[in-house]
Amino acid sequence: MDMLPVIEELSQTTPSRILLVVLDGLGGLPQQPGGPTELAAAHTPNLDALAKQSALGLLTPVYPGLTPGSGPGHLSLFGYDPFRYLVGRGALSAIGIGADFRDGDVGVRGNFATLDSTGLVRDRRAGRPSDAENLRVVAKLKAAISAIEGVSITFYPESEHRFVVILRGEGLGDRVGDTDPQKTGVAPLHSHPHNASDPSSTRTARILNTLSARIQEILEDEPKINGVLFRGISEKPQFPSLSQVYKVRAACVASYPMYKGVASLVGMDVLPVEGLEDALEGKVRALQENWDKYDFFYLHFKKTDSTGEDGNFEEKAHKVEVFDRLLPELLALKPDVLAITGDHSTPSIVKAHSWHPVPLLLHAPLLRNDPAQRFTEDEAAGGSLGHLRGVELMPLLLAHAGKLQKYGA
Amino acid sequence: MDMLPVIEELSQTTPSRILLVVLDGLGGLPQQPGGPTELAAAHTPNLDALAKQSALGLLTPVYPGLTPGSGPGHLSLFGYDPFRYLVGRGALSAIGIGADFRDGDVGVRGNFATLDSTGLVRDRRAGRPSDAENLRVVAKLKAAISAIEGVSITFYPESEHRFVVILRGEGLGDRVGDTDPQKTGVAPLHSHPHNASDPSSTRTARILNTLSARIQEILEDEPKINGVLFRGISEKPQFPSLSQVYKVRAACVASYPMYKGVASLVGMDVLPVEGLEDALEGKVRALQENWDKYDFFYLHFKKTDSTGEDGNFEEKAHKVEVFDRLLPELLALKPDVLAITGDHSTPSIVKAHSWHPVPLLLHAPLLRNDPAQRFTEDEAAGGSLGHLRGVELMPLLLAHAGKLQKYGA
Repeated sequence: MDMLPVIEELSQTTPSRILLVVLDGLGGLPQQPGGPTELAAAHTPNLDALAKQSALGLLTPVYPGLTPGSGPGHLSLFGYDPFRYLVGRGALSAIGIGADFRDGDVGVRGNFATLDSTGLVRDRRAGRPSDAENLRVVAKLKAAISAIEGVSITFYPESEHRFVVILRGEGLGDRVGDTDPQKTGVAPLHSHPHNASDPSSTRTARILNTLSARIQEILEDEPKINGVLFRGISEKPQFPSLSQVYKVRAACVASYPMYKGVASLVGMDVLPVEGLEDALEGKVRALQENWDKYDFFYLHFKKTDSTGEDGNFEEKAHKVEVFDRLLPELLALKPDVLAITGDHSTPSIVKAHSWHPVPLLLHAPLLRNDPAQRFTEDEAAGGSLGHLRGVELMPLLLAHAGKLQKYGA
Repeated sequence: MDMLPVIEELSQTTPSRILLVVLDGLGGLPQQPGGPTELAAAHTPNLDALAKQSALGLLTPVYPGLTPGSGPGHLSLFGYDPFRYLVGRGALSAIGIGADFRDGDVGVRGNFATLDSTGLVRDRRAGRPSDAENLRVVAKLKAAISAIEGVSITFYPESEHRFVVILRGEGLGDRVGDTDPQKTGVAPLHSHPHNASDPSSTRTARILNTLSARIQEILEDEPKINGVLFRGISEKPQFPSLSQVYKVRAACVASYPMYKGVASLVGMDVLPVEGLEDALEGKVRALQENWDKYDFFYLHFKKTDSTGEDGNFEEKAHKVEVFDRLLPELLALKPDVLAITGDHSTPSIVKAHSWHPVPLLLHAPLLRNDPAQRFTEDEAAGGSLGHLRGVELMPLLLAHAGKLQKYGA
């Protein structure tokens, strides 16, 4: 069941402020049975002190056993059921690279491929070219193609064989099939509209087929990258905004395109953050300077995830310590409700996202007693908030902030 | 997903008896961090002894963060998903005041309002009149209006500016709009059917508009209460009964109209209870005298909620103690399955319903081991039943009573 209409009915604006801190990939695992996780191994005096005055729990981001990508993980935390609020692969890629992607645009995920002399797919990833090769070929396409049938065509490099195309123009649709046949030894598919009497998708499929042929001409002389396969053709989704559903003025404080993109999908203002990479000081300054202008803040830290993906246990623990040292500056803002959690787990022994629940710390008025002495996965498992789903977090934060009225008389 | 059809398929009649005790608004909060809740502060030797032989858990009545009204809170405990089994505001008010409200009737929530000399709404609540004023004006309306177009019209006072109207007659409908414009400076709305080709709702809207005009004539000389606004026009909902879904003969032992009303909505027999207010002795006697006639009993106590709403921590704890002293008489009936819980929390520091989970005690055969030494929110949070939703309680009670067959072969 979609809870957003129910919550929209009950939500009300109040002066209280909510700060949702997402430490990306926060959840971890012990390196050997019985050992500490990254979070437990970290020296975190500030988090420890906060945990003693907070309530803990575990969040299953989307569903037990399911490893969420960044999109579904974050949508859940924002209260959007990720099985209902779907983002197509092309749209998610466009958002993830920070492309200029607007309402009505169609985003397409492209793969560079190698075709044989008869036009059949030999390698669906063109031998995984280097990022530099990708950049070179994308530049070549940009120089050669800028519009088809009056629809502007913009190419963006992603990494290796991956790129993104954005179509912009009147009357586009995304109810069209991929051109990626998902196997070798066959020709790339023609894109077809799902419904032949849908004029905008029919036009979009035709443009994609023309684009595919044009690219093949342009890349004719390339030794490896001489074809393209299109997947996940999708318009920018139109989701209800946080301001509509929760009646908050919501701001995003993040520095990587994917997170800014997902936040803007749900209608947050994306605040400018100065500094490189995770830009911790810039983020704190953005919060401080905008504290009076909003009543919901989403603050994102990336490095707990990337160090986990690198398989670097010590470094992930260290990134938690870096956050811990920053915590007093966040507490000094005196958020009425402060939640610290992750969008998914990234255990360094897995070197990837995982399905494990993420620990949640809630510092707010009207909490039950909680035995927590530290903020760790183990203590969170026995915390007073119990085990919740990711989508259940927002109503809880709103309730503790006094922003939800009674349901039914 | 609606579980009632699944449960109906599996339920079977057995001689075992279930006693569901609802201590209204049972869940509480500490007055200061680390302190006891009302339940923990109460001296409860009988509950303590029972807790040692029981299993504990926490129930989230309807959804994390959502504060339930009495209607959704109770429907959940009876196994009816409150997002699916909806009760309109007019119907719930009619039920809440114990009006004679039958299948096919339409219940209307009325507000007394002040209109200015040109007929525009000046005050949607007519300056919140006293209950005595309300009673006087309702008596005036009763004396003047008893039927329109052959449909009987019955007025009931509620409190302050609130009253209830019940329409009874052939061919009424509730797919009609409110006359309350929800703002001042405009005229009351005309009620319109949602669909002009729906004859019963068209007729009901017309009757409500006539009623509105008639009331305005009658109240013309009143200085403040000279208009009415109608809201939440709703038929009595038709829910499947407990006897149909669970194959039990179900009885309600309650003394306040709202609870008797919700119980009768789900088809319970409402047993007469002698005594005033919470009428504890009368309730125990009603149970004892009817013990052989039913196999499911819903026993309701009100005062844990009303003392919480008063913000009286000590008095709420005292009401728990009053229940504790009664407990041996309930145990003497030897229910096969005894559950003690609340329909929602009413922490005295909140002075209102809240979203916090309620503690659950289950005394029944075939329990797992449980560490509980007392029946408190904290112990319930670590109880062997875990954290459940309100709607999940009934299947569990039926299972422990041997009333649910295996699902699937």
